[in-house]
Order: sequence, then structure tokens, then C-alpha cells
Amino acid sequence: MRKLIRGGTVVTASDTYQADLLIEGEKIVAIGKDIDANGAEIIDVGGCYVFPGGIDPHTHLDMPFGGTVTADDFETGTRAAAFGGTTSIIDFCLSNKGQSLREAIAIWHEKARGKAAIDYGFHLMIAEANDQVLEELEYVVAEEGIVSLKVFMAYKNVLQADDETLFKTLIRAKELGALVQVHAENGDVIDYLTKRALAKGQTEPIYHALTRPPEAEGEATGRAAALTALADSQLYVVHVSCAQAVQQIAEAREKGWQVYGETCPQYLTLDVSYLDKPDFEGAKYVWSPPLREKWHQEVLWNALRSGILQTVGSDQCSFNFKGQKELGKGDFTKIPNGGPIIEDRFSVIYSEGVHKGRISLNQFVDVIATKAAKLFGMFPRKGTIAIGSDADLVIFDPEATRMLSAASHHMNVDYNPFEGMKVHGEVISVFLRGEYVIRDKQFVGRPGAGQFIKRMRFSRP
Amino acid sequence: MRKLIRGGTVVTASDTYQADLLIEGEKIVAIGKDIDANGAEIIDVGGCYVFPGGIDPHTHLDMPFGGTVTADDFETGTRAAAFGGTTSIIDFCLSNKGQSLREAIAIWHEKARGKAAIDYGFHLMIAEANDQVLEELEYVVAEEGIVSLKVFMAYKNVLQADDETLFKTLIRAKELGALVQVHAENGDVIDYLTKRALAKGQTEPIYHALTRPPEAEGEATGRAAALTALADSQLYVVHVSCAQAVQQIAEAREKGWQVYGETCPQYLTLDVSYLDKPDFEGAKYVWSPPLREKWHQEVLWNALRSGILQTVGSDQCSFNFKGQKELGKGDFTKIPNGGPIIEDRFSVIYSEGVHKGRISLNQFVDVIATKAAKLFGMFPRKGTIAIGSDADLVIFDPEATRMLSAASHHMNVDYNPFEGMKVHGEVISVFLRGEYVIRDKQFVGRPGAGQFIKRMRFSRP
Amino acid sequence: MRKLIRGGTVVTASDTYQADLLIEGEKIVAIGKDIDANGAEIIDVGGCYVFPGGIDPHTHLDMPFGGTVTADDFETGTRAAAFGGTTSIIDFCLSNKGQSLREAIAIWHEKARGKAAIDYGFHLMIAEANDQVLEELEYVVAEEGIVSLKVFMAYKNVLQADDETLFKTLIRAKELGALVQVHAENGDVIDYLTKRALAKGQTEPIYHALTRPPEAEGEATGRAAALTALADSQLYVVHVSCAQAVQQIAEAREKGWQVYGETCPQYLTLDVSYLDKPDFEGAKYVWSPPLREKWHQEVLWNALRSGILQTVGSDQCSFNFKGQKELGKGDFTKIPNGGPIIEDRFSVIYSEGVHKGRISLNQFVDVIATKAAKLFGMFPRKGTIAIGSDADLVIFDPEATRMLSAASHHMNVDYNPFEGMKVHGEVISVFLRGEYVIRDKQFVGRPGAGQFIKRMRFSRP
Amino acid sequence: MRKLIRGGTVVTASDTYQADLLIEGEKIVAIGKDIDANGAEIIDVGGCYVFPGGIDPHTHLDMPFGGTVTADDFETGTRAAAFGGTTSIIDFCLSNKGQSLREAIAIWHEKARGKAAIDYGFHLMIAEANDQVLEELEYVVAEEGIVSLKVFMAYKNVLQADDETLFKTLIRAKELGALVQVHAENGDVIDYLTKRALAKGQTEPIYHALTRPPEAEGEATGRAAALTALADSQLYVVHVSCAQAVQQIAEAREKGWQVYGETCPQYLTLDVSYLDKPDFEGAKYVWSPPLREKWHQEVLWNALRSGILQTVGSDQCSFNFKGQKELGKGDFTKIPNGGPIIEDRFSVIYSEGVHKGRISLNQFVDVIATKAAKLFGMFPRKGTIAIGSDADLVIFDPEATRMLSAASHHMNVDYNPFEGMKVHGEVISVFLRGEYVIRDKQFVGRPGAGQFIKRMRFSRP
Repeated sequence: MRKLIRGGTVVTASDTYQADLLIEGEKIVAIGKDIDANGAEIIDVGGCYVFPGGIDPHTHLDMPFGGTVTADDFETGTRAAAFGGTTSIIDFCLSNKGQSLREAIAIWHEKARGKAAIDYGFHLMIAEANDQVLEELEYVVAEEGIVSLKVFMAYKNVLQADDETLFKTLIRAKELGALVQVHAENGDVIDYLTKRALAKGQTEPIYHALTRPPEAEGEATGRAAALTALADSQLYVVHVSCAQAVQQIAEAREKGWQVYGETCPQYLTLDVSYLDKPDFEGAKYVWSPPLREKWHQEVLWNALRSGILQTVGSDQCSFNFKGQKELGKGDFTKIPNGGPIIEDRFSVIYSEGVHKGRISLNQFVDVIATKAAKLFGMFPRKGTIAIGSDADLVIFDPEATRMLSAASHHMNVDYNPFEGMKVHGEVISVFLRGEYVIRDKQFVGRPGAGQFIKRMRFSRP
Repeated sequence: MRKLIRGGTVVTASDTYQADLLIEGEKIVAIGKDIDANGAEIIDVGGCYVFPGGIDPHTHLDMPFGGTVTADDFETGTRAAAFGGTTSIIDFCLSNKGQSLREAIAIWHEKARGKAAIDYGFHLMIAEANDQVLEELEYVVAEEGIVSLKVFMAYKNVLQADDETLFKTLIRAKELGALVQVHAENGDVIDYLTKRALAKGQTEPIYHALTRPPEAEGEATGRAAALTALADSQLYVVHVSCAQAVQQIAEAREKGWQVYGETCPQYLTLDVSYLDKPDFEGAKYVWSPPLREKWHQEVLWNALRSGILQTVGSDQCSFNFKGQKELGKGDFTKIPNGGPIIEDRFSVIYSEGVHKGRISLNQFVDVIATKAAKLFGMFPRKGTIAIGSDADLVIFDPEATRMLSAASHHMNVDYNPFEGMKVHGEVISVFLRGEYVIRDKQFVGRPGAGQFIKRMRFSRP
Repeated sequence: MRKLIRGGTVVTASDTYQADLLIEGEKIVAIGKDIDANGAEIIDVGGCYVFPGGIDPHTHLDMPFGGTVTADDFETGTRAAAFGGTTSIIDFCLSNKGQSLREAIAIWHEKARGKAAIDYGFHLMIAEANDQVLEELEYVVAEEGIVSLKVFMAYKNVLQADDETLFKTLIRAKELGALVQVHAENGDVIDYLTKRALAKGQTEPIYHALTRPPEAEGEATGRAAALTALADSQLYVVHVSCAQAVQQIAEAREKGWQVYGETCPQYLTLDVSYLDKPDFEGAKYVWSPPLREKWHQEVLWNALRSGILQTVGSDQCSFNFKGQKELGKGDFTKIPNGGPIIEDRFSVIYSEGVHKGRISLNQFVDVIATKAAKLFGMFPRKGTIAIGSDADLVIFDPEATRMLSAASHHMNVDYNPFEGMKVHGEVISVFLRGEYVIRDKQFVGRPGAGQFIKRMRFSRP
Repeated sequence: MRKLIRGGTVVTASDTYQADLLIEGEKIVAIGKDIDANGAEIIDVGGCYVFPGGIDPHTHLDMPFGGTVTADDFETGTRAAAFGGTTSIIDFCLSNKGQSLREAIAIWHEKARGKAAIDYGFHLMIAEANDQVLEELEYVVAEEGIVSLKVFMAYKNVLQADDETLFKTLIRAKELGALVQVHAENGDVIDYLTKRALAKGQTEPIYHALTRPPEAEGEATGRAAALTALADSQLYVVHVSCAQAVQQIAEAREKGWQVYGETCPQYLTLDVSYLDKPDFEGAKYVWSPPLREKWHQEVLWNALRSGILQTVGSDQCSFNFKGQKELGKGDFTKIPNGGPIIEDRFSVIYSEGVHKGRISLNQFVDVIATKAAKLFGMFPRKGTIAIGSDADLVIFDPEATRMLSAASHHMNVDYNPFEGMKVHGEVISVFLRGEYVIRDKQFVGRPGAGQFIKRMRFSRP
């Protein structure tokens, strides 16, 4: 019931120091030099970092998309996340126009029930901001503890909301203490470009990227930021992929607007050339927004380092190449968007970020865990190592190296976008609320051990 | 020899949580719930915040200026700092062309010896980057632990260095792991405007501000940032006062340049209209750069909140109104520049920042202590509350209110620029390396108790 | 049949020189020193400027709006324009969803028939870019010579088009050689803010301005510019009123995007405080976008001078205070938007621009006539003084001064927004295609003398 | 004595129209349709454009540089200019510290005397703005008609002035009605980088470019612009080569600052890779600022088109490859900077600009002639085709094509940087003040026919 993590180097978003950690039940109760075990189970982690458990603020598990459903559900997805050092996720609960929010949320609770191996929360998609929806949001925030509301500016005729919906959601979010999230791409533009490409017979995966130019993301980002300022509200831009969007966020923040941004491992390390891979393999690299030209990567790293962007999410949304990605053969618009990242997010950012000197160790913790916890109302319960916080911990060996591969990953999907990438550092063990989920690289958790996280209203971090 | 700080709310740059702190000797050795006193002296701080001791990265104590010397020396200045919640300062060691750096530093060591009640480090001014100086810098960094080098772009014919000096210092700093600081105002422009004003008989204090327009600060800031990028080095812009300079820093950071910025309480709360006070009272508000129009304040707060600026220094440089500021009667150029801020920096930023909702509690700790410690090589020994860190602590009652005034302050100077300002929150006790310096608002420290801090080479925070 | 304009100073967008002009029929056929009259009627204009006739690229004559119709139709409006030195206008032809463009245009031709005293063209509003409309545009451009297409981003549920319409119009315009115009304000935001204000009982004219914040214009301007770049097309932003929009246009132009902008005399000289005039008089100053805070004026003048904005239109849209503006008593949304500017545009810009030294004489001609002619396919027939150009001329006495007033103006409306403004310079005579329209300040033209201008496809000026 | 240019298409900065031109003596006296020859010599130019004579605002003829002297003097240089369609140049008169300005100017008058085949003016370099110089400037402007003052921010220890000199020159220029020009590169940075490169044995021509990074130009441009604003004066940035400098000028102009910019044909068409040519041929492409990476070219063209830059100068400064450029073998700092451009400036800009659709025909005239005339006080005498203007004309066949080559050029230098470039359009004949200089591609002018141009004080164009 009590565990003593001994000999590690504790790392938080601000601090790095050698100390023992004492866990009692689910919580961290003591941090100190040479803590007396006093009967506690001693876990020696000498030479390792002790990180707060990763928080992935952007996942799509068990999600229907274009006639299929993601390859990973809450069981496989959260288990893989745990392997990768992630102890909490926030998954996107979809909704439809006309549907009650309670109903939408109930469906999502059902998806997770008995399956999640780590803790989880939900963001709630807002399809239409009519009076009923706006009214119901009070319940959603106060009772469900769902304090983040997603609006899509893209996916015309499917998910896309208009500016009225976005603006009303921003206004309402301000009243209720919620944070609005946007998928910022101009869906009208993309819809037109897509149809035109198809009409010209441009059906290969690369046209997915060419019909979603970065300026369409920059525009939508700027628009969402402006609407946020006009509503005096708060905004979180998901999966920022390009310099144009970074520029908009930087300008907004300089003006004092409350605009935050997330990028993803794929945008930081892969580029548009991958969509040109032969034998339809480019389909594995179809995300929205798409991968960009390589020079954008440095802009994104700079933005993380300078605090223009705050978090790194996975945008986990896995589809098998066989049978799923293949649906888009001959028509790139039918390729399910997304990829399997939930497991490798933590390692890729550590290796490409910290090991290569692009961000500091503390910044790593901040973007991989802490800032998401703060922005999404889970702090200080989650996202840090502090007295009273959940004992969600990652024991990480910075000296180890390994190769990322579908052959060894734990996601329920037949490829890995980082296939063959060598990373520095390795997750050894993971604790969720004081219990092992991963022990010496083995999964020892169980489906259903993960709890739903009722989150607190937004406050500026 | 052991102390238990019980019942407080510990606040760091990242975290806020209730916990006890155990101090052993000079260090924090345990943080936990209900720590067993086990013989330690128990200090009950229920209802109070426990902050890391403030770090003031910008002071001028016992400094000659224009034929006079600052009213506060290391004794009065550090005592006042302690009253205000500051446990470390970094003072500017001046140097002259032709003078050996060792000699310059020796003089500054002498000033502090036996006087400082809190810990202190030195920045070193670089007057001229000749070969001898550049060579000697290796000793300065490696042996003296002085890892920040100040270059003046203003004060023509007195302190001002040319671009060659700045550029060579940046190059050398990169090699040695030092951080270059600039006073960023275009001294040539100011020199001309000053002489022209005097020639026109414009001698009142307000002309100090009118002859130092914000564009002259913006220009120099942009120039210093560009030179930093060209040298692939690192820069810290002291006392940023205006939107023009913020804009330059924001653009530099977005490009990924390593540029950091500091502002001061006076720029965040006072404005140029104060220089127009009658009876020569405007002279009390003569800083360089000068106070700006009021609208700049919001830009500076935004910049702190968005991470464009990282720290708040006092630029402590006190002169009595009687006998010192008065030297400038009839000629504003003879008014000694600067004011007494060292004591109230902490309280003004808490009250105007946290209490008024402009920055979060954790951001407060970051700008008042942590980031300075990180940028200037004192972290994690200083600037945070963590296992192994110095037990430099401030017990702060957030509910108390008080009035700032020369009548009650402890600086050795006959006025207070914040006279009559009501602040929320009050420093109750202050510990330096585990020992009381301030106990229940009384000074219990002693001159000479402060130690010189040898600092570590620069690494990106 | 031949006229010799003798002794004037000819001014074009580029040149200023003393010369005689010989007109034969409708055209300028010779420019020279001391041209031999050789039987031509001699018109002595010594001491006067000879300007090309003003071109007003933005008028709404005989236009229905909110249940009423503008006070000026093509007869009174064009006569007033002539008095003011304007010899060509381009009026906005409205259209409705579902209506054929031919039909919409026919209605507008009917409005003008037999009434216009000066030449005129039409812009065509695009309500919806469906296949029929896109197809019909070929006829519109090729046969009607209507080469500018207006899309409204505001007036939700009335005129507002969505991004799909705007984008398709931009794409089609590029194919056809047309220039797309936008009313750039975010209509969704404004709709919400308006309803909220009314719900709060905020019904006075000032709330018209407060519910249309400048950021809503900046956002829409940036969006339109981005869509233009994505379509590789060309854009003209009408009635730019604020710094935020100027900034967007400046950035677009620096990137090489083909974005042009127009401002109006009201934005350059009046400000939002006018909407607060007592006794409902604020209603006289209700434009969309609204008048802004005074500091925006300098930004707009700078933008004209630096070439960020290219033209000054009147946005003529007159409603009587009595009986029309009064419709909005108790509900600012019912105040007809717009004002009478067509007559004073020329004089106000000359006086406030040239006389006050904000723009040069040649820039004046450029913004008042030449650039509109170039952008809208009327050049060199209109908009300059050159061999072969229409003899549309304004004889202008720069020494005269006069007072603008409803008492003396010729618009069919009971107030003048510039009431009491003293202007330098006066229109003495005006020629349209070689014939007097205004002679010694008297109207000698006739309704129906104005011709419809078939315009040429867009080419970059 | 009278000439009738018949049948051409007259092109000015604003207008394009078919007309005959009548020249009487040195002046244009009539422009018209089918002008009666009435005894004038008839020159049939059917099918050709008639342009105002090109004005090259940036030449260095007979200039000492680094121990050698330019290959072209006023005789060969102006003859070559005439071949290329240029009828006026403004050459840079150097001065030294301590030298009287009168003396410096006298030397330059002597260089030109009896040699220039076209008209010429002088810019005057300001080495040091001491009281004597500032005083003498009144004579320079009023008596010499030299109204443009050049300050070098680069060439440390040779030509470079400090900020004090620049600022004082700006202030004085404002008083006198002169325009300040800057060579905007940070000379201190370049000096350091140059020495470091040499110390590392990096001696090849490419290091000329690598030691003058674009950020050093951007920085100096921004500084000069800021000083101009602070002086409320006017600035012309010569030879803008890169995006960083364009950005600074764009921002300055948007703020309403009076900042103008010039680029050169070499920056618009050649790139840094040329400096890597084998056999020391890279030395032919050594300019300061250096050629940049290719992507800068589009930024420069955009800037010309959008009006951010106003003129194209040649920066003519020719040195033979043999014997002169070769001085830098083994030490790139000894390569004389500059190249032969005076002859091809006009053709390259027409061909790459107008023919390739990057700028319009009227913009071509503006950047090649008109704007320079306006900015430098020669308008309307020079730079346009208007009544009373000098009959400086270029008859230009837009259909012809030819190859640029040292084999056929008329500059006194053994290479041509545009060797092998095919250009569209050809200069057929050139008139200077009504007399042929080039007739059917033959030089028929004479050394000494060119006159010195006393110029008028600055006024905003």
C-alpha cells in the first residue's frame, strides 16, 4: 500500500532534483532525501528519471470515421499509451446536430467502460450551438466535468461548424469556465480544392496534402483567434502543423489574447514527402492537417521552446493499412485520416526534443504532461510530481536506445509511422495512482483500471 | 538545526500544493504531508504561501553615478531586499576601459564583503572587448562563476559600447557559456536629443523621458537580437519598458533566437506623467529607459503572461531626493538615474500581477525567482522549492494588505516611488539557507551573512 | 466641337505640368504649350488645376435597404457627383439567391436609364456561387463588361455569403479576368453581438459601432486575403475603416498577394464619437463598417500614402434623417446604413489630403480617379489626362475655400455628415467626354447624358 | 531644331497611349494625335514604345576602391548607359573625414567634366557629421543642387559612419530638404566575420557572401529606418538585396515613416551560387551586399510590385576580371566590390519584369526612371514624358530579342555578369534633351554633352 521510489531524478515542468518519493495509496505523500522506507515497498530507480505520467490531450479511440472505425479502442489504445509512458488521455466525444449532449457523452462513457487501463477524460465536440446545446453545457461542465469543447472548422458537411457556432461556443465557454478547441483549417476551401483534384483525376495520397494548403490552416487559426478575442474567451488550437498557424498564434499571444496551441510528434518529425511513398504507402501518412514541407518542423520546435505552443498531443487515430487505409485507393478522400501515435508520442518528443537539444528536460515534462493538465483542469491532481498529486509516474531510462516499429509496438494496428526511427530513452515502469501499469516493460495493468476524470473549470495557467 | 515549515501552501513556478517542508542545515530535505517533526523546530505557517526566496537579477548597490553614489549599499540594500522577500540578488559590477576584469571584480567583492544580508552574485560589465578582456573572460566564468556579461548600448562616452564590442562579447559568451545582457537604447540618438533639448532650455525632468523615445529602445533591442542571432549566442535584455522592445523580442523568439527579456515593477505600474510632477518631484521618477505612456503597461503584462518576457528585476539604484536627485535641478541630465525598488518588487508584482489576475500564482514565482535562477546559472540551488535546494523561503500572507511608503520602507532613501500604493499580500518571514532573515516582519539577519554565489555556465531553461 | 483648355496646370497620377489641352469630340487629342486654338472654343483656366474627372468606385444609388430606398437615385446622385468633380461612378448591382444575373443586371440598367448625368458602370453582387451563376458570369464579363464581383462577408441572413461562395467566386474571377470585392466584416460575430446588445436594451446608435468591433473587420479582411492567395486570384477590399484591416492588407501585399484596398472620406476624417451625438443625431453617422476611434485615421492616411490602400470611394448610400434614419429610433439595427458622400469625396480628400500635406497632388489623382480606373478596367479611357482618353476633366481652383453643408449641397438628402467642415479648393467646371456638365459651378448637364461603361478584364495595374 | 516622334506608344509611370511627340529644342512641347510636322524632322517609331529616358540613381564612375579604380569612367560609363536607355545618372561623390565638402564635390565635377555623354547629378557621401560639415551642407544643397546625402553603415574603418553621424545627417537633411541614403549593412559584424573567416583560411569569393549575412543587412535597415523616424526625416535605402531588409522597409512604411528603397538587377536575377563558380570566376559576382539565396528574388519582385521598394539602380561599379577582380585571389576581401550593370539595367528589368509579367509596363517606367526623378529632385524635368519636360526619350522595340554579353556590351570591362542572358526588347534610339545620343543602335552622342543636374529639395512623391 505504500511504495518508495528510491534514487531517481525527479523531473517536473520546473524542477530537476534527486529525491525519493513516497506513495501512499494513490497519492504522493512525501518527497525527500533518503526517505525511511518504514515498511514501504522499495522500488529502486537509480539512474532513471522519474517523470509525471504523460498526458495525451488528443486521442480518438473507438471512433467511427468515414464508414470504418479506428483500429484502437479504449482497451488497446490505453494499454499502448501506458507502454509509452502516458497515464491519462483526453478523448474526443463526438456529437451530432440534433443529438442531446448527454446522449453523446453516454455513448462515449460506454466505449470506455471496463476497457481503459489508464485514466481518461472527454472533450466534447459541439456540432451546433443552438439554445438547447448552450443550455445543456451547464450540465456538461458542472456535472460531467467535461470542460473542453471542440469545434471543427473543417470537414465540410460532416463535422464542420460555422463561425456562429464557434463564436457562441466561445462566449458560452467563457461563462462556464470551459476551454474551446478548434480544428483550424478552412473547410470550404479544402472542400473545393478536393473536389477539383478528384475531377482532374488526382487521386493519390499526396493530393490529400496538396488540397489542404498551410494557408488554409493559417487562415482558420487567425480567425479562431480573432473570434476568441472578440468573445474575450479562451482557445486551444489542436494539432498545429505549420508556420502560418504558429505565426497567428504568436501574434495573438503577443496581443494578450488567451490562445494556446498543440502540435504533434508527426508534424515535428515527418514531412509531406512521406505521402509520396510508392505502393499507396503514402496513405499511412494521411493526417489532417497534412504533413508539411520539412522547413516547418524547425518553426514548430522553436514555437515549443519559446512558449508559443504549449503541448504535444498524439491525435491518435489509428487505422490499419490493410483494409482501412486501403479504402482510399483510387480516391484519397476515402483514406481514413489519422495514425497511431499514442504509444510513441512520449519517446519521440524526448528523443528528438531533449536528446537532440531542442527543448530542455523541464520543457519536455511541460509539453508532454503538465501544461495539458493545467489547461484542461486536471492540475495538480495530474501532470506533476507534488505532494497530494496522483502517483502517476514514469520511470525512464535516458541511456537506453531502441527502434520504433510495428513489430514491437502495442497498438492494434499494422504499421508504425515512425518505423525504423531510433530513439534515445526508454520507459521502464509506469504507475497509475500508485499502482504499476507497466513493470519492467511488461504490461501489468488491467482494462477498466482507468477512471474517468471529472475536470475543473478553466483557469489561466 | 532542523526546521519544519508546517501547514503552508508551497508554490513553485509550476506547482501549488499543501505540504510541510523539512529543512536540515541550509537545505530542503523533505516535502510531505504531515511530516513528523522529530525534534525539528516547528514553524506554523497555516494560511500562508511558501514561496522560494525572490531573486532580483538587477541591482546597483554602492554604485557611483554621475559624481554621486547610490544611497543604498550592500548593507542597507540587501536588508531592504530581505524585508521584501528577496534572498538573492545579482549586482552589476562595473568596469572601465583598460581596467583588468579581475581588478573590477575585486572592487565589487570589496563592496559586498561583510555587508550583504542575503546571497549575491555579480554580472560583469564589458566596456571594451579587446583581446585581453576576451581572454580574461575565461577566468571570470570558470573561476569567479560570473556568467553574465553586461553591455551598454546607451550612455554615450560613459558606459556605451559599440557594436563590435557587443558582437565580440556575444561570440565569446557563446564559447564560454555566458549570457550577454544589454541595456538597449540607442545612445547616439539620445545623446543628440539630450543636447538639443538642453540647448533649447528644456531642462525639467520630463525632458529626460522626451529625449529617450521608445523607438530608440526598440531599435537597440532589435539590433542586439539580430547580433545575437548572427553570433548564434544568447541574450538577456534588461529593463524592457515599451511595446517597441517587446515586439522585437517577440519576433526574435518566434524565429527561434535565444533572446530573453526582463521588465521592472516601475514600467508595469507607473507612467511618464509622473515625470511632470511639480516641485521637481518628477526627478524621483527618472529611470533609463524612462517611464512610458500608460498603454505600454498592458503590453508588458501581456508579455510576461505569454512568456515573451521572463523576469522582473528591480533595477534598484536609489538616490535621495534631497541632495542627490536635486543635483539635476536646472539640468535633467544631472539627475541621477534610478530609484529604490529592491524592497517592493516582490509585493508590487504579487499585488498588481496575481491579485489583479494578470498573471497566475505560478507565473509570479517564475518571474520573481525561478527564471532568473535558471537564466543566470543558480538553479536549482536557488529559485525553487525542491529537495536539495537552498532553503531560501518566503512566508507570505496573501490576505494582508498594506500601504507602501518611505515612512515604513527599509531602504536608505528619502522617498518611495510607490508612495501610497495599497498592496495585497505581505511578507511575514524570510529564510536564507535555512536561517531566519526576517521573522514576523522583523529583521533578524546580519550583514555579512550573505554569500557570494558562484554560478554555473548558461544552459537554455 | 473642339475645345481648348488653356493655361491650366494638368495633373495626373504621375505628372504635374502647365499645358493646354485640346478636346475634339469626346476625346483629348492634344496636349501642349500654347496650342493654336484654330477655331476651337477657348476655355481659360489660368490658376486652376486640370484634373481627370473623379471616379467613384463605390456607390449605392436607388438601392433598397431595410424596407426603404436610398434618398438619391441615379438622377440626383450623379448630378451631385458631377458638382463634386466626379465623372464616373461604379454602382453596386444587387442580386438575390436564385435570381439570374441577367435579370439582376437588367433591373440596374433600368434604374440608371435616362437618369445618369455622368458615366457609370456596375459591380455585380454574387449572392451564391452555384453552377448557374458561375456559368452566367462568362456572359456578365464578356458581354456586359461587368468585371467586378462583390461578395458580402457580413449582413447575416441578408446579403452574407459563405466562404465557399467567396472562394468559388475568386476562382471563377481569376479564370474570367474579374476582380472580386469584399465587404469584409465577420457577419456571424456581428449578428451575435447585435442581438445581445438589443437583448440588453442597448438600442442607441452608438451600439451600431460597438457591435461591429474592428477586429471583426480585421479577421474578415485577413480571411479574404488568404482565400485570394489560395485561389491565386485578385481581391479588392471595399471601405477599409481600421488599422486591423490595413495590417492584413499590408501583410498580404508584402507576400505578393494581389490584394487592393479602398477607404472612404468618412473613415479618414470622422470618428466613432459622432455616433454618440444627442437627439438621435448619431444615426447620421451609421456606416458599416462603423466609424472608428480617431487614431485609426492616421493609419489610413499612412496606408494611402504608402500604397497599401489604393483608392478612396464614397460608399454613397444616402438616407434622410427625417423619415429614414429615424426608422432606427429605439433599435439601432433599423437605422439604414450609409450616408451622403458622393458629392464631397473629391473635395474632402483634396483638402484634408493634399492641402494638409498628407498625400501629394499626384497621389490625390491616383486615389480619387486613376487607380480605380485601372483596377476596374476603365483605363486609359477614364482616369487620366492623356491622348485618346475621354475628355473627363475637372477644373479646380486650389485657392478657393468653402464650407460643406446640407444647405448648399446637391444631394437629395436632408443632412451632410461633413456639415460645417471648411475645405480648401473648389470645383469650378466639369467636363464629361468633352461636354460641360458643371460650368462655373452651375449644373449644365442632363439626366441621361451619362453612358454605361463596358469595362475590360482585370490586369494588374 | 524641332523633331516629331511619330507613331509610338508613349509610356509613363501612369499612362500608356498612342501619340506623337513634338520636341522643340530640349523640351517636349506637344503630345497629340497626328501632330502636324510643320517642318519638324519626322522620326517614325511605329511599333515601338517611347519611354522617358532611364534614370540610374546609383552609379560609381571613376571611383577609387581598394587601391584600384573602377574600369569605367564618366566617358565609357555614360556612353554605355546611353546604349542601355539611360539618360541621367546620379553618381556618388565620395568625401573623407576632415575634407571640405566643396573640395570633394570639386573633384567629382572634375571627373565628369568633358566626359559625360548623358546628364548627371551627384549624391554626396557624408563621412562625419561635424559642425563644419553640417554648416557646409547648406551650400551643398542650395548652391550645388546636391540634395541627397549618403551614409555608409558598413566598410568599417574605411567608409563607415557611426549612428551619431547618421542621425545628425538625417536631422540636417530634414532641415535642408535633402534625402539621406544608406548603405545598410552592419559593418562591425561584417568586419568581425571577415577577419574570422580569413583567420580560418576561408579566402575564396564565396566567403564574401558568407561573411555578410542577410540579417546584418536587415538589422542595419531597421536601424536606419528607426533613426529616420526619430529624426522625423526621410531615408532611401540603396541596393536592398534580401527579404530581411524588405521586411524592415515594409514595416516602416506601414507606420507612415518616410522610408524608400532601391534594389538592383543583380539581386533580382542572380543568386549566391554564382560566387561559387570555379576558377575564381565567383569574383565577378562580388557585390556588397552580396547576392543572396534564390528565394529572396521573389520577395524583391513582390516588393517592387507592391510599392515597398520604389526604384532599381545599377550600383554600377565595374572592375575588370583580369587585373582587378584578380587582386582578391587568395583573399576575398581584396576583391574590388561591384560590377558592370549600368548598360543592362534597363533591359534586364524590362525583360525579367514586364515581359515575364512580374511588373506592369507603367511600373517599369516608374522604377527605372520616374520615381528616382521624384525622390531626387529632378522631376518633372526628368523622368517622365510631359509638356515642358526634357526630351529625354528611349525608343524601344518590345518585339526584338537579344543576348547580353561582354562581347557586345559597351562598358569598358572584360566580363558581363548577365553573360548569355536572353532579353526581350531592345533600345533602338535614345534622345537627350532633344538630341540623338543613340540612333538606330549607334552611339552618336559625344563626351561632354551631358550636363550636371542641379536638383531641387526633397518633397514627398
